[in-house]
Amino acid sequence: MSAKAYADFQDLLMLGPEGDEAAVAAVRARDAQLTKPAGSLGEMERLVEFMARWQGKAEPTFEDPMVAIFAANHGVTDQGVSAFPREVTKQMVNNFTKGGAAISQICALHEINLRVFELALDMPTGDITIVPAMDERTCAATIAYGMEAIAGEVDLLCIGEMGIGNTTVAAAVYAGLFGGSGADWVGRGTGVDDEGLARKANAVDRALERHAGRLNSPFEVLAHLGGREIAAMLGAIIAAQHNRIPVIVDGFVATSAAAIAQAVAPGSIDHCIFAHTSAETGHKRALEHMGKTGLLDLGMRLGEGSGAALGAVLCKTALHLHKNMATFAEAAVDEKLD
Amino acid sequence: MSAKAYADFQDLLMLGPEGDEAAVAAVRARDAQLTKPAGSLGEMERLVEFMARWQGKAEPTFEDPMVAIFAANHGVTDQGVSAFPREVTKQMVNNFTKGGAAISQICALHEINLRVFELALDMPTGDITIVPAMDERTCAATIAYGMEAIAGEVDLLCIGEMGIGNTTVAAAVYAGLFGGSGADWVGRGTGVDDEGLARKANAVDRALERHAGRLNSPFEVLAHLGGREIAAMLGAIIAAQHNRIPVIVDGFVATSAAAIAQAVAPGSIDHCIFAHTSAETGHKRALEHMGKTGLLDLGMRLGEGSGAALGAVLCKTALHLHKNMATFAEAAVDEKLD
Repeated sequence: MSAKAYADFQDLLMLGPEGDEAAVAAVRARDAQLTKPAGSLGEMERLVEFMARWQGKAEPTFEDPMVAIFAANHGVTDQGVSAFPREVTKQMVNNFTKGGAAISQICALHEINLRVFELALDMPTGDITIVPAMDERTCAATIAYGMEAIAGEVDLLCIGEMGIGNTTVAAAVYAGLFGGSGADWVGRGTGVDDEGLARKANAVDRALERHAGRLNSPFEVLAHLGGREIAAMLGAIIAAQHNRIPVIVDGFVATSAAAIAQAVAPGSIDHCIFAHTSAETGHKRALEHMGKTGLLDLGMRLGEGSGAALGAVLCKTALHLHKNMATFAEAAVDEKLD
Repeated sequence: MSAKAYADFQDLLMLGPEGDEAAVAAVRARDAQLTKPAGSLGEMERLVEFMARWQGKAEPTFEDPMVAIFAANHGVTDQGVSAFPREVTKQMVNNFTKGGAAISQICALHEINLRVFELALDMPTGDITIVPAMDERTCAATIAYGMEAIAGEVDLLCIGEMGIGNTTVAAAVYAGLFGGSGADWVGRGTGVDDEGLARKANAVDRALERHAGRLNSPFEVLAHLGGREIAAMLGAIIAAQHNRIPVIVDGFVATSAAAIAQAVAPGSIDHCIFAHTSAETGHKRALEHMGKTGLLDLGMRLGEGSGAALGAVLCKTALHLHKNMATFAEAAVDEKLD
């Protein structure tokens, strides 16, 4: 990547507005009046502050929440790294739309919009054990696509993905960013056996070796080792910040997009929270490298934005409480003793 | 407590039906067909199994979920153990009913029934640093009241409480059951300062000393050191098992009722899950003594069933997914490769 292009990319990540601390102060002032001991709702209070800070609203809203799923296919599936055939990516995209998937039903129950973005499913990225996943141009165009995808009225964005083989490329991205070998980052994904797990680790190791010397920036890591959905999620995360949209990042694969952004500009993911710690080996390690923690820890490892959507349900609940609870004065409840 | 009365109490805890493993098997058979990798919904899958097992239904329901809040007052508040005056118990009961409290709004948003049971708020229990909280007869009658409270069509019961001063008596109950001193079990409750925290620890220590030699059974621990809401929650937990109602236990105080039951008959709380690990110091320790873990860990310490209700929201979501997700066959999604 040229120095100019890299500088532009870096600028892009820094362009967004800062958090609105006045909005946070307003939220805290109201919170202190609500009929509960100060601080007793814990992370639920933090969620309201988070929404206020990044929406830039003293009365944060949950009117247009959206789960965005980015779907892509991966040449590395030729290496036998997944328990499911590549065709499942497209089949699951259909399932999302028809309402049969877990994410469809979480969204239906809790009134969250669901949008699915297909990324050239018939054109899998290159097999990273042999060639780069994408050339720089494709990678940049896919980031731009992800940026465009987040348009219109959205007040909370949940970032998810679907792509058979993508826990392998995400593991490679983490290894490219944070070091370590394949075995440090791969997990069982959709459920590979011990042999499949060994093939995943081996595929990552070969990819790291194949592209050694060309992984000198986060963008190069993404282009050589990543995938279209990771590039698009990165774009969506960037665009969300520019548009004052708080983001809830899903699990192992979605977090790799945030890790790319953070590696370029640490503050560029301050508007993101991490919904949960996935059961996929390596996610906890990735979050630790990033200095982040997951909100939930439910042993989930489904992807498709399912963890992020559960985080959104907590967010919805937290905002509902903040808006609708009575104050001490309204409820005629005595305040704390001096 | 007489040997006869104690034997009767023990029998009561053992009378309930066992878990329905056939219902669990049916749930697992359907789960294996749903369009997701096996096991990928983690604890969400466990919740469906839990509901099936204790409802005794192959298709577990979430049609009549109820949060039951038991409210009581405590003589030990004379020792300056709370940051709020005793009057707040009654004021918050009014607030629950009028919709101003956190639990009211969680229930309203997620369509969960809320019932509040007042336990002689004008007659606080005895100050445990001086006298027993209750005589045996009052304690037994309050357990019976709690059993009666859980009548009608309920398919999930969330157990919560309200009572200024009750984190002190719950700490005393844990010390009575599990050993240790006041300092091991007390926390800041609604928000006492360092001096208040020292007063709480001291009050528990004095209560343990005052009633030493009369804490030979869990029932005696409850009567001497506990409170009406703890006795009533114990009754509700017992009745729920008898009536095939799964239970979600809230935080530090509610868990003490379950701890009493478990101390008498370990299997008597198999139909309970623990919603969260409270930020109240001592809850984690109590759960560890009981061999249990909290589903959520959100730094909450509000009581009033708020953690349990969030657990119920996850439960509702899990059942909705189990019921409404498409199977591989229905969605024409390829199954896992051999």
